[in-house]
Amino acid sequence: MSGQSQFSVVPEGTVTTPKGFRAGGLHCGLKKTERHDLGAIVCDVPAAAAGVYTLNAFQAAPLRVTQESIARDGKLQAMIVNSGNANACTGQQGEDDARAMRTVAAQALGVAEHHVGVTSTGVIGELLPMGKVLSGIEQLPQRVKQDGGDDFCQAILTTDLVQKMTCVRLKVGGKEIHIAGAAKGSGMIHPNMATMLGFMTTDANIESQYLQQLLNRITDNTFNMITVDGDTSTNDMVVIMASGLAENEALTPEHPDWEAFAAGVQYVGEYLAKAIARDGEGATKLIETTVIGAENDEAARKIVKSIIGSSLVKSAVYGADANWGRIIAAVGYSGQPVNVNTVDIRLGDIVVLEQSRPVKFDEEAALVYLKTDTIQIHVNLNMGTGKATGWGCDLTYDYVRINAAYRT
Amino acid sequence: MSGQSQFSVVPEGTVTTPKGFRAGGLHCGLKKTERHDLGAIVCDVPAAAAGVYTLNAFQAAPLRVTQESIARDGKLQAMIVNSGNANACTGQQGEDDARAMRTVAAQALGVAEHHVGVTSTGVIGELLPMGKVLSGIEQLPQRVKQDGGDDFCQAILTTDLVQKMTCVRLKVGGKEIHIAGAAKGSGMIHPNMATMLGFMTTDANIESQYLQQLLNRITDNTFNMITVDGDTSTNDMVVIMASGLAENEALTPEHPDWEAFAAGVQYVGEYLAKAIARDGEGATKLIETTVIGAENDEAARKIVKSIIGSSLVKSAVYGADANWGRIIAAVGYSGQPVNVNTVDIRLGDIVVLEQSRPVKFDEEAALVYLKTDTIQIHVNLNMGTGKATGWGCDLTYDYVRINAAYRT
Repeated sequence: MSGQSQFSVVPEGTVTTPKGFRAGGLHCGLKKTERHDLGAIVCDVPAAAAGVYTLNAFQAAPLRVTQESIARDGKLQAMIVNSGNANACTGQQGEDDARAMRTVAAQALGVAEHHVGVTSTGVIGELLPMGKVLSGIEQLPQRVKQDGGDDFCQAILTTDLVQKMTCVRLKVGGKEIHIAGAAKGSGMIHPNMATMLGFMTTDANIESQYLQQLLNRITDNTFNMITVDGDTSTNDMVVIMASGLAENEALTPEHPDWEAFAAGVQYVGEYLAKAIARDGEGATKLIETTVIGAENDEAARKIVKSIIGSSLVKSAVYGADANWGRIIAAVGYSGQPVNVNTVDIRLGDIVVLEQSRPVKFDEEAALVYLKTDTIQIHVNLNMGTGKATGWGCDLTYDYVRINAAYRT
Repeated sequence: MSGQSQFSVVPEGTVTTPKGFRAGGLHCGLKKTERHDLGAIVCDVPAAAAGVYTLNAFQAAPLRVTQESIARDGKLQAMIVNSGNANACTGQQGEDDARAMRTVAAQALGVAEHHVGVTSTGVIGELLPMGKVLSGIEQLPQRVKQDGGDDFCQAILTTDLVQKMTCVRLKVGGKEIHIAGAAKGSGMIHPNMATMLGFMTTDANIESQYLQQLLNRITDNTFNMITVDGDTSTNDMVVIMASGLAENEALTPEHPDWEAFAAGVQYVGEYLAKAIARDGEGATKLIETTVIGAENDEAARKIVKSIIGSSLVKSAVYGADANWGRIIAAVGYSGQPVNVNTVDIRLGDIVVLEQSRPVKFDEEAALVYLKTDTIQIHVNLNMGTGKATGWGCDLTYDYVRINAAYRT
């Protein structure tokens, strides 16, 4: 990752570490247990904003409302999120509800309505209990605080087991700036633009248009390169807000520190993406797959996704079975150009296939490696310079258990 | 299905019911237990033949050899099959081995070498133990008999639980003809032309070119419309052999009974395809999904596959959860044209979505329905006249168990 040495990770950093941001969460009654199910990130000033959204045809109502807000003047001052109910496939009523969330949040927080974004995650096709949601939103101003990053993070989880958060700092034009992010993932994870929900904050000074350009670029290499189950949600969204309070000279692609800043944003995106994959429903292992030597990057990306999306590869990793035949089968059905005589495959450092020919390997060593919690699959097609990396997880009994009884 | 009334199912019919065919199976040592792992279908005369083959780039060696045989004069007199080892990704040695199987079979059975097809199913990337295979092939002549259909069927199974066989009869130009089929399926089932292995026999008189045309047509609506796990195998193949011994006037697309014959072949293909889906690894239920009102048939087919391929839909069916949100999400990410305001969804007879709006339904009745062993999902996009039907199965603990430890 170019420029990685130019930023450093902020231990315990959250989405409120960048200057100007507060956050919080509370339980308003959407989840059955007393866990947080409503949260907000609020900025002291209108922040330059950018977003990427699901390509699922049934895009949920709140995504449309958020897009509308950002379209007005490229800024957001608050992002409201609820978990437990996706407000998707809920028709005109769902759209009215998402708008009502925005209106009430704007009033409660004292910000312009078009500077509020809203998003939801949870069950599809049920109307939001608006009494609970709106009275929850009215309590947000008291809950939103400088150390509320953890509360916010809890509010966005559904079947997630762990919070997903990170923060880095780096110098831009001599000023210290921060980039932070929080995400939720778990199931219905096969983002076709971004993952379920990602929220990034920064105090860098950067205009909305450049922020959008950067978000698009890093999304292709991070959130769009993970899969848990091949299902693309109706509610996928990643939003980034930049307060500008670090007071650096405005960042543009021509700025000498642009690539360093981009590397910081890439790191945060990749960190969250990997955290989502590792915490996929029922997962016990992260599968990191790298393809090199492909005809081009796009081909490499598709082959990576074919491998990490294969139920058979995922089951084999769960069972610690060095079944490279399933990996090559997934390469073969990816629909991408492949030279069937030149493929190399490694599991970690263990070479299992060379020039498409099986290599005698130490089964015991492979078993030990496949029992670790991060499994790397390396494929070299030896055809061209295309490369890509993506992340998935193993397929386990627990995935089935969780999803056999999610709604009920 | 047009013409369905013109054929009738032959109870206990097998691939040897059509005139001129014998079959058999034996244990040569590829499977660890004493189950059959080598089989053959043999015809008294060179039979007109046609085949469809996997589109996986790593097409296994025996498929290439079979294609070569059929290409010579459009005829086959014997199909040899082994289970337990796929002879895939085995390089030049694998190709030499597939050719050796063909040569030895031709000698043992006394037929021309180019009238022998070979195919394999099982683990990828291991060389065949040729001593066992060839001495097994040499015993085939004593095992191949008129009532050997069951033995053959056992020889082609791997993780399959049940035999998959059917036979129909109908009149063509006043002569009684038969069409029969046998298949294996189970895992790595997402055929991209045909399913794992399908063998069809008929005593109809029909030239190879017309047989190929018909096989292509019915494959698109049968074997290509099933999925177990989204993984397309390196060894998928369906072969049909026509002995001509029914002595009907040769069938061509202009023959008045062509469509009746086509309906018979379609029935056999669909029967086998559904049997494969129902017996998918770990499956407890068949999921039959029909999409109508799509922009065109191709769009309908892709939407069907998106639904039956969704791990979340499959898990919900296993858990008897009427989670239509996952169905509409799968419609939405299919990449096909959808009017987001006009979608109807039914589970069996239970309407759950109308004009994209949730319908209050009897949860108790839905639960009872979803606990039966065949679940029908009907989607009407209300946009056009495109329609398709496909078959899948539920995703269960047992799928994971079987595939976490297949190779070892």
